[in-house]
Parts: sequence; C-alpha cells; structure tokens
Amino acid sequence: MSDSEFDLIQEFFAGLDQGSSVRLGVGDDAAALALPDGHLLHVSTDTAVEGVHFLAALSPTDVAYRSVMAAASDLAAMGASPQAFLLSLTLPARDLPWLENFSRGLADVCMAIGAPLVGGDTTRGPLTLTVTVLGSTPADHYLTRSGAQPGDRLCVSGTLGDAAAGLAVISGQIAVKDAAAADFLVTRHTRPSARLALGEGLRGCATSCIDISDGLLADAAHVATASNVRLEIDSAWLPLSAAMRSSVDLDQSLDWALTGGDDYELLFTLPSDLPPPDGCTEIGRVAEGSGISCDRTPEPIGYDHFDR
Amino acid sequence: MSDSEFDLIQEFFAGLDQGSSVRLGVGDDAAALALPDGHLLHVSTDTAVEGVHFLAALSPTDVAYRSVMAAASDLAAMGASPQAFLLSLTLPARDLPWLENFSRGLADVCMAIGAPLVGGDTTRGPLTLTVTVLGSTPADHYLTRSGAQPGDRLCVSGTLGDAAAGLAVISGQIAVKDAAAADFLVTRHTRPSARLALGEGLRGCATSCIDISDGLLADAAHVATASNVRLEIDSAWLPLSAAMRSSVDLDQSLDWALTGGDDYELLFTLPSDLPPPDGCTEIGRVAEGSGISCDRTPEPIGYDHFDR
Repeated sequence: MSDSEFDLIQEFFAGLDQGSSVRLGVGDDAAALALPDGHLLHVSTDTAVEGVHFLAALSPTDVAYRSVMAAASDLAAMGASPQAFLLSLTLPARDLPWLENFSRGLADVCMAIGAPLVGGDTTRGPLTLTVTVLGSTPADHYLTRSGAQPGDRLCVSGTLGDAAAGLAVISGQIAVKDAAAADFLVTRHTRPSARLALGEGLRGCATSCIDISDGLLADAAHVATASNVRLEIDSAWLPLSAAMRSSVDLDQSLDWALTGGDDYELLFTLPSDLPPPDGCTEIGRVAEGSGISCDRTPEPIGYDHFDR
Repeated sequence: MSDSEFDLIQEFFAGLDQGSSVRLGVGDDAAALALPDGHLLHVSTDTAVEGVHFLAALSPTDVAYRSVMAAASDLAAMGASPQAFLLSLTLPARDLPWLENFSRGLADVCMAIGAPLVGGDTTRGPLTLTVTVLGSTPADHYLTRSGAQPGDRLCVSGTLGDAAAGLAVISGQIAVKDAAAADFLVTRHTRPSARLALGEGLRGCATSCIDISDGLLADAAHVATASNVRLEIDSAWLPLSAAMRSSVDLDQSLDWALTGGDDYELLFTLPSDLPPPDGCTEIGRVAEGSGISCDRTPEPIGYDHFDR
C-alpha cells in the first residue's frame, strides 16, 4: 500500500484495531491475531457493490454498518464468535466527509459485533466493499448447512421480510403512514443485526444452520441440498412483524417473508425433542427427499447478480 | 451467495480448497481452518483493479496468479507460512473461457504458495480482485517493520527493478532483442514469487522486514518510519539482473531498482554480525535519524492510486 492510501486508512480507521486477540493491528504488512488454542478459525468474505447490493441513496454510515454486519452474519450461521474483520474499500474519489461518516458506521459495527478492524486496502473505482470476517469456535462445535435430519424441526429467528419491506419504504415503493412502523422497517434494512449470540447458543444443539441473506426459500434450498433432505415450510407459521403487517396486506407480507433478502436471521434445524429458543419460531419440518416445499410459491425466489 | 454465483464458484474453483488445515472448505457460510496451537494468525487483504493495478492486456491466468502472489508476499514479510486464502472476484460478465483460464492461474498459485482457496464471492462490475491471505507463525517469532536498529545491515532478496522492466516490455515502452532476457523480465512481472521460504527463515534473525511492492524507496520509507531510524541506501550495491542490465542502460536500471513496484522481494534488516542469506544482497545500513538517504534521487517514488 502506498503512503497516501496508508494515511487515509490510518486517519479514518485508526483506533478500530483494538481487541484482546490483536497482537499487531493495522499498519504492518499483515495483522497478527491470537486465537484460543483448540479452536477452529472460521473465515468468510462478502463483496457489496453500490447499486447492486445496496442503494446509492444509503448513507455512508449505513453502508459501512450493513456490509460488515452482513459478513458477520456468516459467522453467526457457523456458531462462530467474531474475532476480527478486514475491509477492502474501493472509492470513486477521496471524499473526506464521506469517509468520516463511513468510519462512524465502522466504529458502530465494531462495537456491535465485538470485533476489531485489523486490516484493509483502499483503491479507486466504483464504490465497492469487500469484508472478510474471522471468527472462532471450539474445534468440535460449530454449525454447518449439512446436518439436517428427517424429523427435525425447521426454525427461524426473529421476523422475516422486514428488510425487504424497509427497502420498499426507502425506495418509495410503499408509503407507510405509521412513522414508528416505517422507522422499524427501514432500520431493519439499514441496520441489520447478525444473530451472533443465538448462533453461539445453537452450537451443539442445532443440526444445521444458515443465515437468511438471499431470502428464506433460496437459503432453505441450500440447506436442503447440503443436508440431502426436503424442507417443508408452512407459510401460516412464518413470523411476521407487527410493523410489516400493519403496512401491507398478508399476501405481500408472506411474499417478502419467503423471498425478501437481507434479513440476516438464522434458519436452523433442531432435533424434535428440543423446543425453539426464545425469539425463534418453528416454521416447518425436515423430511426425507430433496428440495423445499411450501404452500405458497411466490416469485421471484431470492436473486442472482449474474442473472440480472 | 445466491445459487448461480455459488455454482460459478463451485464449478471453476472446485478442488482448490484442499489442505491439511482445512476442516470445512468452500460451500458453507464460512470455511473452517485448524491452526497449530501456540501460533499466531496473520491476515492481510489486497485489492487489484484492472487498469490500475494490472494491465488490461494481462492474461486471466496471470491476473489470478499475480494477485494472489502479491497478497502472499505480505505473509512472507511477516515470516508467516500461508494457510489459506479467499478471493472476491468482481467480473464484468459471465465469461466462461475467461473463468477457465483464470481458474488455471488460481490452481497454479495454490500450488506455488502451498495454500488452498477456502472462500470467495463473485459479483458483477469492473474487473476487480480482492485477495485475503491467512498465515501462521509461532506466537513469539514473526517479523514486523518496526524493529530495525542503528548499525543493522540493510538487505534485499533477489534482484530489483525486473518487474518494472517487464512491464515496460509488455507495454511496448522498451524493445528487448534478446528473447530470453525479454521473457525473464516479462515473467518477473506476470509471475512474481513471494519470498515465503526466506521470510520463514528470517524469523528470529531479521530485526525488521517488508516486501517491496511499491518500490524500494517507498517501502524502505515505511520501515524507517515504523522503526524510527534512518535507512542509508548505496545505489552501487543494488542487485540488478543480467537481463535488465543487457536491456537498458545503468541509469534506467537503477531508477527501476529504486522505484519500480511489484518486485515482491523482501527488504530486511539484520544485526551486523549476521551475513546476508544466500541470494540476498546488503544494500546499505541502518543509522540513527529518520527517513531514507540514497545517492540517487529518481522520480517518481513508487505510486499512489489516489494521486493519479
């Protein structure tokens, strides 16, 4: 990294690289982290492009927060505890006010996920963020997509479809009169919460887990494939927020709950003798077979950046 | 990640996620790696944008190879052994022949650095690669930029300026009649070698280390700042390849050796009682003070993507 780029990162992202596991933070060729002995390292990377993965209208603070939280959600799905993250930022111009707001969002999300920013790179180009997250679990206790068993309960955390509804509010697709409901939905889009504590709590009890980033049906299909089972979803059981229900009709609510992306809730399977944890809802069952079944077939199912 | 993107990665990057430390490879929310107990994790990320960090004329195979090797070079500078890497790939279109060639470069570089590709993301946009590398060292033995002491020898590995000369050959800036020399220089640009074995060997003996990615003077300045010392470079001692010397005059050779980027050699300091290792050259000394001194002052020093 050249001098000025280094200065740019140093100035705006300084002080975010503090953490108990950090032996060497930003400013050398690499950061050095100490993980607990006997633990596995979990690592995932996510790229977000302006106009594709987030609205150009989103504030820099929210862009930072949301992108890191989306990446952290992959750790939640593994049951992993965040240890650190890295950010590669491509910017169209050296825009200092933008960077200042962006760094505020970064500081917020560091606090929210309890992990430091230990490295990064800045380059010039269309606004793009690549976030790499590092987490850890005990060596024998982590969650995958592949362990669902016929007979298991199929469960989700929180409520579904809110982020899609929030996006509809922001983009003017729907008008929501109740200011509190509108604010709730918008915040679910701009400031998602990775279910990190739940993911850690599910280690050793859930048989499979995934985070809902592309929409319930799309992500459920990944679990069905990886576990070689069939997931049966009952739309009547889907958890819908009061804010969404008061803003649009039931059909629209259910469609968003089934296909809306960016909720970052967890979808997981539990042996039938375990009840869903607090704040979670059983939405169906695991059966023999393949694919997913649901009494509703909304369109489109999730989305694909290359098919647009 | 959505279905088709997932398939894209699965199809082209399949089989590159094998390694002794890999507990879970590509295909879940995150990859899981086992690091040796008592070791530190070293992590760094680098973004390369077509037309800024690499020529649009570069083959997809070389783009893949070079980008990953550049990131691995940051591990060499820490004395770290590569454990795995992740790749975020932004592509203008779903170009299958391009991806096939690209994946060949990835396979080559996995072999060369001895580390698997354990995760990634594909998005649509201007060709951009973000590579995150993970490496490990014993907890108390790694290299930083900050330990150079007055009186230390200043050393570099290999020869300097070759990658800049190779870039000049590729872009038609110079004509080199000797085909073997031209090939050597071009290959130094398109297929650099991170000095991983040297970096590991320097653990416990070098007092500081950095990889030369922005040019000798620019990177030496980082060491001088981090170590709070002055680095004195004697241009007469700079190691120049026979291929470069036979292709351009001494002034041009020295300028490229001092400012040419992308050599990915190591610059390091050694206590004066230790001789430079095989294949390395002493190019100056560490003194009290700050900054760097050199008997030549070429222009420009390194480069900065935001100042272009």
